[in-house]
Order: sequence, then C-alpha cells, then structure tokens
Amino acid sequence: MPETAVAATFTQKLEASRAAARVLATVTTEQKNRALHAIGAAILRNADRILPANELDLANARENGMSDGMQDRLRLDYRRLEALEAAVVQVASLDDPTGVVVSGTTLANGLRISQVRVPFGVVGAIYEARPNVTIDIAALALKSGNAVVLRGGSAAENTNRVLVDLLQGALIEVGLPFEAVQTIDEFGRDGARDLMQARGFIDVLIPRGSAELINTVVSGSTVPVIETGAGVVHIYLDESADEKTAVDIVHNSKVQRPSVCNALETLLVHQSVAATLLPPVIRKLRESGVTIHGDARTQALVPDVVPATEEDWSTEYMSLDLAVRVVDDLDDAIEHIHRYSTHHTESIITNDLARAERFLAEVDSAVVMVNASTRFTDGGEFGFGAEVGISTQKLHARGPMGLPELTSTKWVVRGAGHVRG
Amino acid sequence: MPETAVAATFTQKLEASRAAARVLATVTTEQKNRALHAIGAAILRNADRILPANELDLANARENGMSDGMQDRLRLDYRRLEALEAAVVQVASLDDPTGVVVSGTTLANGLRISQVRVPFGVVGAIYEARPNVTIDIAALALKSGNAVVLRGGSAAENTNRVLVDLLQGALIEVGLPFEAVQTIDEFGRDGARDLMQARGFIDVLIPRGSAELINTVVSGSTVPVIETGAGVVHIYLDESADEKTAVDIVHNSKVQRPSVCNALETLLVHQSVAATLLPPVIRKLRESGVTIHGDARTQALVPDVVPATEEDWSTEYMSLDLAVRVVDDLDDAIEHIHRYSTHHTESIITNDLARAERFLAEVDSAVVMVNASTRFTDGGEFGFGAEVGISTQKLHARGPMGLPELTSTKWVVRGAGHVRG
Repeated sequence: MPETAVAATFTQKLEASRAAARVLATVTTEQKNRALHAIGAAILRNADRILPANELDLANARENGMSDGMQDRLRLDYRRLEALEAAVVQVASLDDPTGVVVSGTTLANGLRISQVRVPFGVVGAIYEARPNVTIDIAALALKSGNAVVLRGGSAAENTNRVLVDLLQGALIEVGLPFEAVQTIDEFGRDGARDLMQARGFIDVLIPRGSAELINTVVSGSTVPVIETGAGVVHIYLDESADEKTAVDIVHNSKVQRPSVCNALETLLVHQSVAATLLPPVIRKLRESGVTIHGDARTQALVPDVVPATEEDWSTEYMSLDLAVRVVDDLDDAIEHIHRYSTHHTESIITNDLARAERFLAEVDSAVVMVNASTRFTDGGEFGFGAEVGISTQKLHARGPMGLPELTSTKWVVRGAGHVRG
Repeated sequence: MPETAVAATFTQKLEASRAAARVLATVTTEQKNRALHAIGAAILRNADRILPANELDLANARENGMSDGMQDRLRLDYRRLEALEAAVVQVASLDDPTGVVVSGTTLANGLRISQVRVPFGVVGAIYEARPNVTIDIAALALKSGNAVVLRGGSAAENTNRVLVDLLQGALIEVGLPFEAVQTIDEFGRDGARDLMQARGFIDVLIPRGSAELINTVVSGSTVPVIETGAGVVHIYLDESADEKTAVDIVHNSKVQRPSVCNALETLLVHQSVAATLLPPVIRKLRESGVTIHGDARTQALVPDVVPATEEDWSTEYMSLDLAVRVVDDLDDAIEHIHRYSTHHTESIITNDLARAERFLAEVDSAVVMVNASTRFTDGGEFGFGAEVGISTQKLHARGPMGLPELTSTKWVVRGAGHVRG
C-alpha cells in the first residue's frame, strides 16, 4: 500500500477521505461495479493472507478469554470468504441509488427544480470484532458513492488490516482513489472518540454491534448517527387468534434465529385465551429448548415457568429465552409495548379487523405486523437486496435500510436569469 | 390553564407530551385543522393580553441594552398578530403529510408491506427571542401530528407565556390534549440542557436562530437534531456569463433581503471576465449601499474596495456586505466553495452547458443553481406552502423543509400466518 497511508495523521486521513468522496460522487455506476468485482476477486485471491491474520486474532482472543459466540463472529474460513465474495458481487448487481430524481417540477415562474439522490460523502462505521462488516460496509458505501472510514473492534485488527489493504488494492486496480476506504484502527480508542466528533469530515456515523456500543456512539457523537439495532420485539396474541397461527408464528419468531434483533423477546397474551393458547404455544417452544420467563398469571397456567422480574420485560435475550405476560386486553398490551419496546418490530396475531387496525395504528414501532413472523423485518426479505442494518430511530431512515438510505439528496435549480420579486 | 401544568416537573411535562403525541398521532386531519383555526382566532382575540406582555419583554430588553435589530425581532404589534393568524390558517390549508403511503408492494410470498408517513412523536424546539417562532412551530408540529416542547429565548418569556397559554386554550377548545404544546421556559438553562439529553422523550430537536445557538444544540444533544441555517452562499460568474443576467442576479441575491440565510455572501468571478463584469455588477450593488470586501485582484479592478481578509471568506454577513474574489477558473471556484461554503446554496451564472453541468454535479450543497438568484432557496418559493426551515445537514432532510420533513415513516406488514423459512 502507498506509504502515505502508513504515516498519515488522523486529520490527514479524514481529509483524504473527503477528497476521495468528491471523486466517488461523480464516477459512473459501471466504474463502481468494476471496483466491487475487483474486491470480490481480491477476497478469494488473498485467502492465504486473510486466514493467517484471522488465526492470529483468534489466538489472541482465546488468550484473552473471548466467549465462544464472539470467537465465532470473529472467525473467517474459506467458506465464509466465499460468502463474503458473493455478497459483494450481489451489491454490484443492485440498482445504483444515486442520480435518481426523487421529485421535481417546473414552478409557475418557469424555474425548474429537481431533487436528486446524491451520496452522503464520507460514512463512518464503528463496529465490533466481526471482520465481515469491514467488507459489507465498504461494499455498500462504495456502491452508494460514499467514502468510508472504518473503526473495527481491536480484537479483529490483524484481519481488518489485511482486508482494508486488499480493498484499497482493488480500488487502485480500477483507477479509483484508495482513500475511499480507510481504517483508523491504528489510532485506538482516541480514534473512535475523534471520529464521533469529526463534524465537517464525517457526514454520518453508523455504529454496528451491541446496545452498549450503540449507546456510546449516540451519546458521544456530534456527527449525525444512524442508530441501528436493539430489538425488544413483541407479539400479542389477541383473543381471536387461531391456535395454529399463534403456535407457528411465535415459534418461528423466537426460534428460527434467536441471536438477531428481529427475534421475539416478549409474548403478550389476552387473558381470555391464555389458558387455551399458552400451553400449546409453550409446548412447541420448549421442544426447541426455549426457557419461559413468565408473570404470575403465566405461572398459574403453565408448569416450570421461571418467574419474570421487571428486568425481563426490557431484556433483549438474543437467546432461547422468552418473557411471557398475560394482559387484560388490547389496551393493556399496547401500554406494555409502549413502555418496554425498543420500537423495532411488533406483531399482533388476530382475526379481528378492528383490533388489527388499532394495533397497526397505535403501536409506534419501525415495523408493525399482523399475522406475520417478526423475522420478516429484514432488508433482504423486504426486497432491498442489501443488509445495511435496521434503523430504530425516526430521523432519516426507519426500519430495514437499503442502499437509498445511504444517500442524501440535493436540489438542482435551473433558471434563465430568474430573480425573486 | 390547568393547574397541573404549573406544578409539573420537567420529566412529568415530557411524559405528558409523549402521551399527547400518542393522541395526536391518530386524530383526523379535520380535527387538527379545527385546532389551527381555533389558534388563529385566539391570537387575534387575545391581542390585549399578548401585546402588553410583549411590551414588558421589550422594556426589559431596552434596559438590558438589546440591539435595535433584536428588539425588532422580539416586537409584536397588531399587524404582526394578523400575519401570524394568517400563517396559521395557511398551515391548516396544507395537505396533511401523515397517513400518506410512501411505498409498498406485495412480496413473492404474499406478504403485503407498505411504508406509511407517521408523525415523529414529540418535536423539541430551541430558539431565540422571536415570539412568532412559538406560533409557527406549534402550528407546523400540530398539522404534522406532533406534540411540541418549546424552549424560547428568555428575553421573550412574558410574551411566550401568554402565547403558549392561548395555544393550549385552543387545543382544549377543540377537545385535544393541551399538553400537545408545552413550554419548558420556566426551567431556564437547565431545561434547555435537559431537553437536549431527553432521549426517549424527544424524537427530534430543531434549533432555530444564530449559528452559535445551533452549534450549542448540535454539540450538546444526544437527541437527534435537524440542523437549519447558516448560509455562506456563493455565486460564480463564469467566463460566458451575460452581463445583464450577472448584474441582476447578484443584486437580487445580495440586496433583496440581506438578513436571511439564502442571501449572497461571496461572489466569485472568472479572471478573464472580471475586468468587464465586476465594474457594472459592483456599481449596481453600491447603488443599494453594499460594501465590497475584495481580494487583491478585485482591488486592482475596482476603486474603494475594502481589502478582504481570510475571515471574510467564511463570514455570513447577513448585511449589505459582500466578499468578492477573482478566481482562475471553474476548478478554482469549486475549490473555494468546497473550502468555505456552509453547503446551503450556490449558483453559477453561465451560458456554457458543460460548465453548468459540472458545477451542478460537483458542488456539494443543499441547493445548486444555474442562472437563478440564491433567494429562491425557500420552502414557499419551492411550493411547499410552509417554512419549517432550511436544512444544511445531509441526514433526513436537506434544503427547504416542508411538512413531510416533520414526519417519519413506519412499515406496516400484513400477513396470513406467514413464517420465515
């Protein structure tokens, strides 16, 4: 890699990112796609550099007592590299979100105005020790015309160093500025803090990882942040819910992939159907090894329930655990959700039209559902073709984010000597 | 007013705002319009309460040595109340942005998804001693289904107290929760600071006022902020610019209303036409009393130019002052803009198609123009019918904001027992 990158100060690096962003903003879709294909090829070609670096990170992780789950997220092998390559090639196949005219008109005075999608400029990403995020975010940023400044978890630093090196090599290969992808890992914790304060250099910051990481970034940033993540997700079984629908949707929502943010965490059940619905719903969950944390009314109906504490209602287990509460009615369910939800996804299982509509209207979450598994809250499932993350904030983007959510707009005004009267 | 409002703590007030927001989110457009008409009527009916309170604020302001300009912004008279009433009635006539389906489809598996505009919830507003903002923001928030928490400048506290009182009275009159509009002025500086940190209570914070106020809010907030405002606005006179077009557009951009953010602050001129264009352009400006701050090349071409310092290039004068610089070419102009602009509005005056397109593509500002006055960057001029502000950030909204920019979206998913495979 160019030696300047090695010796650059933090500010020099960010200035280089800004300059690279100006170039990226006007290159063609074809050129960006060529870069993505070059990145894909470089991933497979450099397996013999990536995997030993990853082994080194894993050895350090074991020495530092990293949990098996976290080691699994850190680990790369050849199959995972193939999956990463496929993901990058898939991003190349997506529509370029930039240059799209979002709206436009000719004003009464003849002035023609149009609102056009443009890249943000420089996207910052702060994430944990998951090296696949390095490739994912770089590919998504590139396709949307953004430069990206990466700050990965220190436990993945050897892997990320190689990955950024090959990303930059691929950019150079196709004639794009290598500074379009940069890491600030070498600046350690100070670098992360400075990145959060880098107004004028970083246009938007995307934290990816634990609730703790996201909170740190949100509270420490003066740069605008897109908050993704935490899902204390609810399903409400209405008094009119079908037993089979309830059993299947609750099971799918909890068990299909318990470690992700759209997995079910709290089940609410109308009191009049709790006695008939809870036993079959919980039986099926237990067949898959789910532990039930229930309120007093749940404990009275089902054996071997762990008594739920106040804490359970706001816990994102991300494991085979489920909080269960019997509620008085729809109002009570909505109140519970209002109080404890992280406003990610909530679903009602019902056959009653009026209650379905009330739930959809009154529950204030990024995604509200009727008779569907909460696992459908996903950019891929929604047909976006890319997994940028799921926004739980209300500004800019809410819910699953596709490539257009990695862009801003600008207004283009064309006159013929127009002055304002 | 209800006594509870008087005794409420800061947190109680914000909790009441959240509850009011939940009500507002589901009331009909008709009901919101009734509230707006009631507010309009209350403004005129209560002139005998508003104007004396305003007199008191003005007397205090004079005693504290407030500048004439700021006193003028603070002052209300009957004609200004009529204008305020008219503005509120105008907001009632605008389309309700909520409930609009922004996008939607039926997925291959039969799941129907739609993205629907919904209110943010609770909007916070921090502004300076301009009591008209109290009415403006409350009306815009209400129409878009948002509750609003107001923190006005302390110099307007007597006026604002009466205004909030009549806003709440109008809400009660039409059967809406009065807590949909609240002030936290009684909590002083601590209140402003707490508002900026009120995550979970305030969904978005809008600062309105000086660059200093906006910077304070942006750096001090953990709540998402929509940044409006500062405009170091440029016009570039290309070598192919028409003299008359250049003279008229520069004059209009600088002189028509110099105190606002879309007024011209820096004029750049191509070196090959500086000698022919600058004299007539500056002559016309001087007829309107404009002071020219020029670089060395400008000074060589025009008499009586104040030498520009480095500081002039980044100054938003908001007065009859203009910085002028002769540049080598379009690249030099774009570099100057990149370095000094606040990315609000920039315009090129040219007859050359290729250079027009390059300027529009490469200048990274909220609004980029060709052959038009920068004064057109305005929600009213763009046909939005409302003046929410002009965003200079890239997240969520960029450029003039209309009512839709005061909303978020939510995804509504309708299934028939769908589970993910």
